[in-house]
Amino acid sequence: MQKYCNTVNESIKKEGITTVIYVMPNGENSKTFDETIKITNFLAQNNINRNDVVIALGGGVVGDITGFATGIYKRGMTFIQVPTTLMAMVDASIGGKTAINIDMGKNLVGVFHQPKFVFCDTDIIDKLPQDIFCEGITEVIKYGILEKNNIITKLLENNVNIYDIITECIRIKAKYVECDEFDVGVRQKLNFGHTIAHSIEQFTNHSISHGKAVGIGLVYETLFAEKYFGLDNSISSTVIKTLQKYNIDYSLQKICEKKDINTLIDFMGNDKKNNDSNITFVLPKEIGNTDIYKIPVDTVCKILSEIV
Amino acid sequence: MQKYCNTVNESIKKEGITTVIYVMPNGENSKTFDETIKITNFLAQNNINRNDVVIALGGGVVGDITGFATGIYKRGMTFIQVPTTLMAMVDASIGGKTAINIDMGKNLVGVFHQPKFVFCDTDIIDKLPQDIFCEGITEVIKYGILEKNNIITKLLENNVNIYDIITECIRIKAKYVECDEFDVGVRQKLNFGHTIAHSIEQFTNHSISHGKAVGIGLVYETLFAEKYFGLDNSISSTVIKTLQKYNIDYSLQKICEKKDINTLIDFMGNDKKNNDSNITFVLPKEIGNTDIYKIPVDTVCKILSEIV
Repeated sequence: MQKYCNTVNESIKKEGITTVIYVMPNGENSKTFDETIKITNFLAQNNINRNDVVIALGGGVVGDITGFATGIYKRGMTFIQVPTTLMAMVDASIGGKTAINIDMGKNLVGVFHQPKFVFCDTDIIDKLPQDIFCEGITEVIKYGILEKNNIITKLLENNVNIYDIITECIRIKAKYVECDEFDVGVRQKLNFGHTIAHSIEQFTNHSISHGKAVGIGLVYETLFAEKYFGLDNSISSTVIKTLQKYNIDYSLQKICEKKDINTLIDFMGNDKKNNDSNITFVLPKEIGNTDIYKIPVDTVCKILSEIV
Repeated sequence: MQKYCNTVNESIKKEGITTVIYVMPNGENSKTFDETIKITNFLAQNNINRNDVVIALGGGVVGDITGFATGIYKRGMTFIQVPTTLMAMVDASIGGKTAINIDMGKNLVGVFHQPKFVFCDTDIIDKLPQDIFCEGITEVIKYGILEKNNIITKLLENNVNIYDIITECIRIKAKYVECDEFDVGVRQKLNFGHTIAHSIEQFTNHSISHGKAVGIGLVYETLFAEKYFGLDNSISSTVIKTLQKYNIDYSLQKICEKKDINTLIDFMGNDKKNNDSNITFVLPKEIGNTDIYKIPVDTVCKILSEIV
């Protein structure tokens, strides 16, 4: 990352623009109020104004917290997303949803704050460590189920053209965001896999990454749909086959046991989209067709007990 | 305040609506990240959702931090302003500017987050402690200078009709906000008196209230205009006469000395509207006619040395 930072910094300085650099610790556990305070203090100490520009260079965590900090500093200043992971390129950097975590839940505090633009250098992808690459693949699989397209087919080919796949994912994400920027309707379908994923992340105190949690979430929410309304197993087979190709572990049993289900559900209950006694799930009915379900807690508990 | 809280709470519960109550310490020193964290935790612990409603019952501090906390909790939830001070009724509760203070400056962190509505019970005004009432009067005087109207005349009458005055102030504030919700143009004129006021508040670590600081700011920014472009002394006389009628102290010398001017300017430099080496002032040219000036730091320093 230091190398990318130097490259970007040199390139900007060459244009005669003054820069200052803030480096934050990596990982989901940095998405906190504490880190937000450090960033806003840094901006103020350097006399950064509303018309200056902040570049979020990094993965989804850097993008989320930079978007939030620049969204609240002086009531909003310009920022640019330069995602350096597959996950951030296809998902986190697009759409202006910024957030930090608090004790009670993931992404429970944030603002909608659109980046001025998103700059993806796909040449970086080849240099990503395998596990970071795979974490992005889980979101890619999600897009392959959400919409009728050939993403899954492409992911299963021998010579994967990642550039084409990224382009297609961004197109899909942008379409949902355009229809529903403030996440009150159709955009919530992008949370397929994420009800379970977010609660796993909370349950493990973020020792499991978002990408890995999404992989598990995709599998178990599809299995959930099989129990809930008798979905056939073709989608879960497709998801599992794709995860296996990329050696992505999707076993929920390794993370928790039946006795932990109530704790998982407690974390789901604090997700942003949930009302009192229902948990919101996005479940697939066929490839390209998902729906949003509000399911009573006791039903969720019963079905999870059958599949965990 | 506890009495008002009970009254409002009982009235809401009578409609069959469930309520929870959060009480925060009063005073500008509560407008912090720490207090924001406590509020967002409280909301999460009580499973408050985006469609629930938070009522900010109190003065400007309560309104500012409630607006901010509800603006970032789950990326924005509904809130209502119920201002209980004159200051909050005529200024803080209107327009959706929410904020907290950080070490480097006042209101440096916040969001634009409009309340669903503002509910003013002007019967409260008669029961306000005299000093709280007077703190609001300084903002009222500001509106009397910003626009051609009869606010100052009304303030100087023997039997002040505060209801009429509040209505007129709200009308003026709403007009500026409608023209420039995001504070990039004409709305900045509402900062008349506030460049000096904010820096005094910072300088005294908020031991002087916002309202009192605004009174001083109105006087000294008008005196500043007299030195800067030869404004005649009719406006400063009017402002001082009105402050005196309400026994509002406007002496800057009691707060700081000539040797402190650079520190004051440092605080001005971190105000949101300032660029690098200029300080932004809103200065009156005549009643109903102000302009925004970007003035070099050394000029500001020279003039302040003459008037402090």
